[in-house]
Amino acid sequence: MRCVACGAIGKSENGLANKTITAVKGFLAGAMHCGIKESGKPDLALLVSKVPAAAAGVFTTNKVQGAPVIVGREHIAGGRLQGCVINSGCANVCTGQRGLRDAREMCALAAQNLKTVGVRLPPSQMLPSSTGVIGRFLPMDKLRSGIPALVAKLADTAEAGEAFAQGILTTDTCVKTAYATLHAGGATITIAGNCKGSGMIAPNMATMLAYVATDAAIAPAPLRRIVKAVADQTFNCVTVDQHTSTSDTFVCMANGMSGGRILSGRDLNKFTTGLMEVCLSLAKQIARDGEGATKLVRVFVCGARTTSDAKRAALAIANSPLVKTAIHGGDPNWGRFVSAAGYSGASMNVAKSVCKVGKITVFRAGRPTDVALSKVEAAMRQTEVDITLDLGTSGAGTAQVFTCDLSREYITINADYHT
Amino acid sequence: MRCVACGAIGKSENGLANKTITAVKGFLAGAMHCGIKESGKPDLALLVSKVPAAAAGVFTTNKVQGAPVIVGREHIAGGRLQGCVINSGCANVCTGQRGLRDAREMCALAAQNLKTVGVRLPPSQMLPSSTGVIGRFLPMDKLRSGIPALVAKLADTAEAGEAFAQGILTTDTCVKTAYATLHAGGATITIAGNCKGSGMIAPNMATMLAYVATDAAIAPAPLRRIVKAVADQTFNCVTVDQHTSTSDTFVCMANGMSGGRILSGRDLNKFTTGLMEVCLSLAKQIARDGEGATKLVRVFVCGARTTSDAKRAALAIANSPLVKTAIHGGDPNWGRFVSAAGYSGASMNVAKSVCKVGKITVFRAGRPTDVALSKVEAAMRQTEVDITLDLGTSGAGTAQVFTCDLSREYITINADYHT
Repeated sequence: MRCVACGAIGKSENGLANKTITAVKGFLAGAMHCGIKESGKPDLALLVSKVPAAAAGVFTTNKVQGAPVIVGREHIAGGRLQGCVINSGCANVCTGQRGLRDAREMCALAAQNLKTVGVRLPPSQMLPSSTGVIGRFLPMDKLRSGIPALVAKLADTAEAGEAFAQGILTTDTCVKTAYATLHAGGATITIAGNCKGSGMIAPNMATMLAYVATDAAIAPAPLRRIVKAVADQTFNCVTVDQHTSTSDTFVCMANGMSGGRILSGRDLNKFTTGLMEVCLSLAKQIARDGEGATKLVRVFVCGARTTSDAKRAALAIANSPLVKTAIHGGDPNWGRFVSAAGYSGASMNVAKSVCKVGKITVFRAGRPTDVALSKVEAAMRQTEVDITLDLGTSGAGTAQVFTCDLSREYITINADYHT
Repeated sequence: MRCVACGAIGKSENGLANKTITAVKGFLAGAMHCGIKESGKPDLALLVSKVPAAAAGVFTTNKVQGAPVIVGREHIAGGRLQGCVINSGCANVCTGQRGLRDAREMCALAAQNLKTVGVRLPPSQMLPSSTGVIGRFLPMDKLRSGIPALVAKLADTAEAGEAFAQGILTTDTCVKTAYATLHAGGATITIAGNCKGSGMIAPNMATMLAYVATDAAIAPAPLRRIVKAVADQTFNCVTVDQHTSTSDTFVCMANGMSGGRILSGRDLNKFTTGLMEVCLSLAKQIARDGEGATKLVRVFVCGARTTSDAKRAALAIANSPLVKTAIHGGDPNWGRFVSAAGYSGASMNVAKSVCKVGKITVFRAGRPTDVALSKVEAAMRQTEVDITLDLGTSGAGTAQVFTCDLSREYITINADYHT
């Protein structure tokens, strides 16, 4: 199994293998600028399977949910989907009944125009997504002219896959792509995905937007179970700013075009491992590209009473602005890590707790170790910083969370980002 | 009743009334630089009542607690206290048994030297406090020479009160003082207090450090009840960076030297109101002086199912870096306020929810109002920003939380603050 997670893949060149989402058999993709974003950047993207696909998705748990999330939940409820239509620049959230009508019209426009390129599907087989400013109505005139133009450009080339990866971005500084192949069910299966997200990132059941396509043949019920489990260990372990978005969506479509058998037994496990690898790569790319980020941070908590205690402590550390600024400044101020776990609500036995920065133990048996702070500082100055905290209870709970540092650039992006 | 809460009181001038903590009858105060802080700023402070006082305090709920917090809880357990000895520059947290011995020695040094100025008390009647870096041992040699020198300087003058207010600060940019007088129990009672705190501020049972002195005569039991209730509605409603400190301490000492009766009945209510006013003023001064802050933000949540739901939603809004940066930039991006409540875990009926910025309604009946964003922007550009959110449930829960904006300066202070 191979996994490409370079974070910033350039335009594919002729002669190189296609490792974009269109490398998955039977998927077409594309993106364009339809006029929603003033910057002129791509703001409309489409991903379509030539044949109906089994599909499963997880969505935001925010009580304020975008209209596309509400419509998307309806459309994926039967476990089948054939495509996704995505705009950026306007989130279609806090928009009431009009927002719901607009999200449904996006799906209808896509379905209607896909007929012209020979792909027939009901609007209810399209999943809509929108990201951007909350509290604005979608500019439907731009989508009414944009969607037909985009359908005409759909292709299964590497360039089309690259365009899709670009098309779903907002404040992201690079595309987020992951790709894996494996053998299962008597065929070579490809799994490829893209995601976006660098601010308002603290997924809870899903991340900002992630689309994974596979040509595996897999029934909706096991796919749903696998997607949920994979989301919990990948996207749900990322936080940039603890602000769970109203638009979080992670969808996986499996169209069976690899030609293999319907997966079961050990083959399902192999598929789960492949999907986990792709999604973990995407999740880490989100953390590394968090708004203003200069470092990727991994927080690992062990010795917790329960898994949920471990996650609570890991998230408290990962979300503390004091922790994130210490990491930004390369400051060996490990007291901030230990004290964040202390207020997380997780059970903790301070006298048996152990804290490590990278491989260096800084705190043990209730007091600092004798290690020179200059060594800790060297570990903090890396572009990847690992924090490990043993909560010192007799439990076996562990959790891993990915985040980034907090820089002046985050403030610039978010204080100067005007609605 | 008068309350002075100007936030930045200058040195008192001859001829002006003393409104510092030494204006309370029978209290002596002082501060000095004993060599802990490299900056040369004051790092040691003392507050002492000439006679034993009823006392009550609330302390951090962080599971990692400073040695002074552990010793302070022991000393105040009997409801009596006669003084507080406070250092800054080193928090004496994560320091094990040696840390506990050091905190006890601070109290013993104070008690032993106070004899030389005619104040006799056992070491167990002193409350120790330390703030600063976590994970370092106290430099006891500096305290062993500093405490005798400071005792010799104790006074009940306005200058001594000012010195105390200055002496407890760390990254604070100004002193935090509040003062009130009232008539109860047949006498004029003075309540005056100081606090410190601008980073690692998300009190839960108390704030960073707050000391309130009063010459009211009041029994320990009602004082304890009142202090707890007042803390919950004042210090516990402030957050700068959601990082609950390991050192949070709020102590109130009542030495009875006003000459009045022991308070009971309606007089206790009057005292509670006075203490609430002093503490609310101090709490708001902390929020306004949050690290890097340029604005004071009040978040008021109503229409919640319960009070705790209201507080959960208000804290989610107040702690969201996306909310705090929008306020910093004067950006009318109210979707961030509504969506923060949405992920807080509080019950919410989005269709009946109402959001206001200042007095301007921006969101109602599930959709944006027609108000011009330029008007909202004008409200956001003030140095005091009020956010009101009705969660739209049929409940009567309300809560108010104070915070500040998030600026580049916060990053500078905390990324460049080296341990």
